[in-house]
Amino acid sequence: MVISSPESVLEGKYPAKAHARRVVDHIRGKLPDATGVLYVEGRMTKLLEDNDEPEHFRQRRFFYYLTGCELADCYFLYDIASDKSTLFIPHQPGQRHLERPPVSPAEALAKYDVDDVKFTTDVSDHITFLGFDNKNFGALKEAVEVCRVVKDDYELALMQKANNISAVGHKLVLERVRAAKNEQELQAAFLAASVSQGAKNQSYSSIVASGRAAATLHYVRNDLPLEGKLNLLLDAGAEWSCYASDITRTFPISGKFSKESREIYDIVLRMQEECIAMLKDGVLWDDVHYRAHEVAVEGLLALGILKGDKKAILDARTSVAFFPHGLGHYLGMDTHDTGGNPNYEDKDTMFRYLRVRGRLPAGSVITVEPGIYFCNFIIEPYLKDSVHSQYIDAAVLERYWDVGGVRIEDNLIITSSGAENMTTAIKDADELKRSSARNKRAPVSSIDSPETLWIPEVIKRNTARGLQVLRPQE
Amino acid sequence: MVISSPESVLEGKYPAKAHARRVVDHIRGKLPDATGVLYVEGRMTKLLEDNDEPEHFRQRRFFYYLTGCELADCYFLYDIASDKSTLFIPHQPGQRHLERPPVSPAEALAKYDVDDVKFTTDVSDHITFLGFDNKNFGALKEAVEVCRVVKDDYELALMQKANNISAVGHKLVLERVRAAKNEQELQAAFLAASVSQGAKNQSYSSIVASGRAAATLHYVRNDLPLEGKLNLLLDAGAEWSCYASDITRTFPISGKFSKESREIYDIVLRMQEECIAMLKDGVLWDDVHYRAHEVAVEGLLALGILKGDKKAILDARTSVAFFPHGLGHYLGMDTHDTGGNPNYEDKDTMFRYLRVRGRLPAGSVITVEPGIYFCNFIIEPYLKDSVHSQYIDAAVLERYWDVGGVRIEDNLIITSSGAENMTTAIKDADELKRSSARNKRAPVSSIDSPETLWIPEVIKRNTARGLQVLRPQE
Repeated sequence: MVISSPESVLEGKYPAKAHARRVVDHIRGKLPDATGVLYVEGRMTKLLEDNDEPEHFRQRRFFYYLTGCELADCYFLYDIASDKSTLFIPHQPGQRHLERPPVSPAEALAKYDVDDVKFTTDVSDHITFLGFDNKNFGALKEAVEVCRVVKDDYELALMQKANNISAVGHKLVLERVRAAKNEQELQAAFLAASVSQGAKNQSYSSIVASGRAAATLHYVRNDLPLEGKLNLLLDAGAEWSCYASDITRTFPISGKFSKESREIYDIVLRMQEECIAMLKDGVLWDDVHYRAHEVAVEGLLALGILKGDKKAILDARTSVAFFPHGLGHYLGMDTHDTGGNPNYEDKDTMFRYLRVRGRLPAGSVITVEPGIYFCNFIIEPYLKDSVHSQYIDAAVLERYWDVGGVRIEDNLIITSSGAENMTTAIKDADELKRSSARNKRAPVSSIDSPETLWIPEVIKRNTARGLQVLRPQE
Repeated sequence: MVISSPESVLEGKYPAKAHARRVVDHIRGKLPDATGVLYVEGRMTKLLEDNDEPEHFRQRRFFYYLTGCELADCYFLYDIASDKSTLFIPHQPGQRHLERPPVSPAEALAKYDVDDVKFTTDVSDHITFLGFDNKNFGALKEAVEVCRVVKDDYELALMQKANNISAVGHKLVLERVRAAKNEQELQAAFLAASVSQGAKNQSYSSIVASGRAAATLHYVRNDLPLEGKLNLLLDAGAEWSCYASDITRTFPISGKFSKESREIYDIVLRMQEECIAMLKDGVLWDDVHYRAHEVAVEGLLALGILKGDKKAILDARTSVAFFPHGLGHYLGMDTHDTGGNPNYEDKDTMFRYLRVRGRLPAGSVITVEPGIYFCNFIIEPYLKDSVHSQYIDAAVLERYWDVGGVRIEDNLIITSSGAENMTTAIKDADELKRSSARNKRAPVSSIDSPETLWIPEVIKRNTARGLQVLRPQE
């Protein structure tokens, strides 16, 4: 229900009150006598340094979790004993409201799941009146971080909505990849698809990397020409009401994978499929990550890039040279969501950058994003280290540098019996080929009217055709 | 030269050294014995609060002015006596360079107009060595603010480039306005045009306001449907290498102005033309702003919205109800650039929000952006105040609310004999009509190939046709 029709779930209010109660339950699990109030400040309006323009507004996630309110300059108070929540909103009499009319307490009360709305000018009265003998600034933050791991239906619907919007963008980029001249045109296409569907914020800065640039994990340039490159790696996700999507696809730029690209693509896809098949309530994420490495080693052995004994290679952690990041992370209001308990000090290179350690509960959302990369900067030290170089066939490897990097990333909801995949952008290699080729060959007569020149119309047309946009927005 | 071919000017380095010398000259004008060093810190890398993603990076303008360097985590030192500048760049041995390879001092020296490049790990040695008996933290900031007012050819070329990119975006929105369903689709089109031309940052958040929303001066929603609305106000400008453009156009959504919209449009256009005609080195900006009000009053009297004596209306400041903001502001690295000396405490409502007061020097760049708005929130108090209500014919006014607001904004370089207009987006009312109508009627046969579906190709096609994109990018 949530996945097939997020809009119907989203007709209700964001369940802020239920979140406050969950947070209190969690605090009481650790501090049984906890009483008093929860007090959280939202993000304040800030100006750019030395400038009269506002900074980009990003609501504080802790505040949003307890209020569902995207306004600036607000406060939130929740009285544990009476189970009463109060939102404080700004009151600016006499100001020139140049951006929008001020929101009244009545409007805010109708919109947000809180019990009362007052002006922020009243907040100090309330806090002073209540008094605090004992202030604990750590308990609330820790509780919200833990509670955020398991999403309720409303949160899942927001994330599905974000995913659906992103799927349209990924589809558009796939369709354009043969005609575009450079990475920035494709970044523009994804951005336009997001904004035209009402998603004003991206979950993170898109990575639009062609050829060898795809081996740079957090590539930021997004400005290189596509000509002569094999693949495009697109890691891009729109945000919807503070909730993220995070999707990666790797396309052949020419419409057809090279032999080497297809070989690597098939390994990465198998890494992802086998890992997704392991998912269910309580699965140990470390095990899933390890399985991705096993599949990678099996695949690279079959190609001859690796040589020697599979177990010995895994024990030596040589596969980290080709798959140097974690298999995935929790996803929610933050792209790298809270509660993962990573250990970036881990001496074991295979697990050092794994952002989630431990068991995944039902209702959590995790990205599954295996990758294989041919990054000189990363692989070079392995080739120079005899522990690893014995397992790498440098001559075979030589043929793969132009593959750059392949990553495939979906967003999965953990369930009691398995997992549900929120991500619908195509990843079947043959389908990828057909889809970009279809676009290249599309005859002019297939264009319905001059309006189809315009991106949102292109989106509409594709949705109507029932192509890979599996869940139309409207 | 600068205007017709900015790219050739931009083949050189950003003139950082000349800027440092100008700044020292300015300081010495006030402090003849000034010696020692100028020391400026660039913008540091920051993470989003409670998050592992970086904040959007925006280089400090003072730092950029003296270095032309867009890297994060840098410092700059300029020794006045020896006229030697040193840029300090970050040195991060052992870090995982996930975003891009580290920049070496040699690369930075080749790219930036500085005399020496060292690592930031060395900066404290230099500063300690030099010693400071007398630190003046105000003098440098004030000097850079003043120096930034008059632009050199390189800066003008950057701004012309930003303007050219924005002109393509404005043209695209004009072409799409009849086919689009809502404001966000048009915002997406402008954004896509900017990013696909390599301009990753907007100078400011676009205002894409349809119908009555155009009366909200800093409208931020950009998400309303276009159906049934008369006009679209688009205030949008791309940034290029830290330099801004700032352009506003008002289009009829149907392709044809209503009688009332055209009447208001013609007044605003005349306000702009008469003000631009006054511009030249030394003109008093307050006088130009006043002239805009005079033209507005003449026009509104002719329509019958205002009634009574022109001079009396101007003296009463009644026209501020319809033109409530300043005529324009300096433009440069900031959209509202430094050195304008506004007086926001001015008791005179006509001048309170004027961001530049005093005389404009040759080489400064100023926006000329008159507007007439029908904003309930602003006009209502005037209708209730007998000082003003005697001059307003509420019955005639009633017919104009749906016009919303009209603003026309260009970017002008002040010269010794007049001004040069950097902004080429069309503003002739008949041409606006023809241009959107032409798109609506464009036969399918005019589409060269399926690739023209894609925005950058649309841009290319229009450029080739020699339509309103007067200065092709390539």
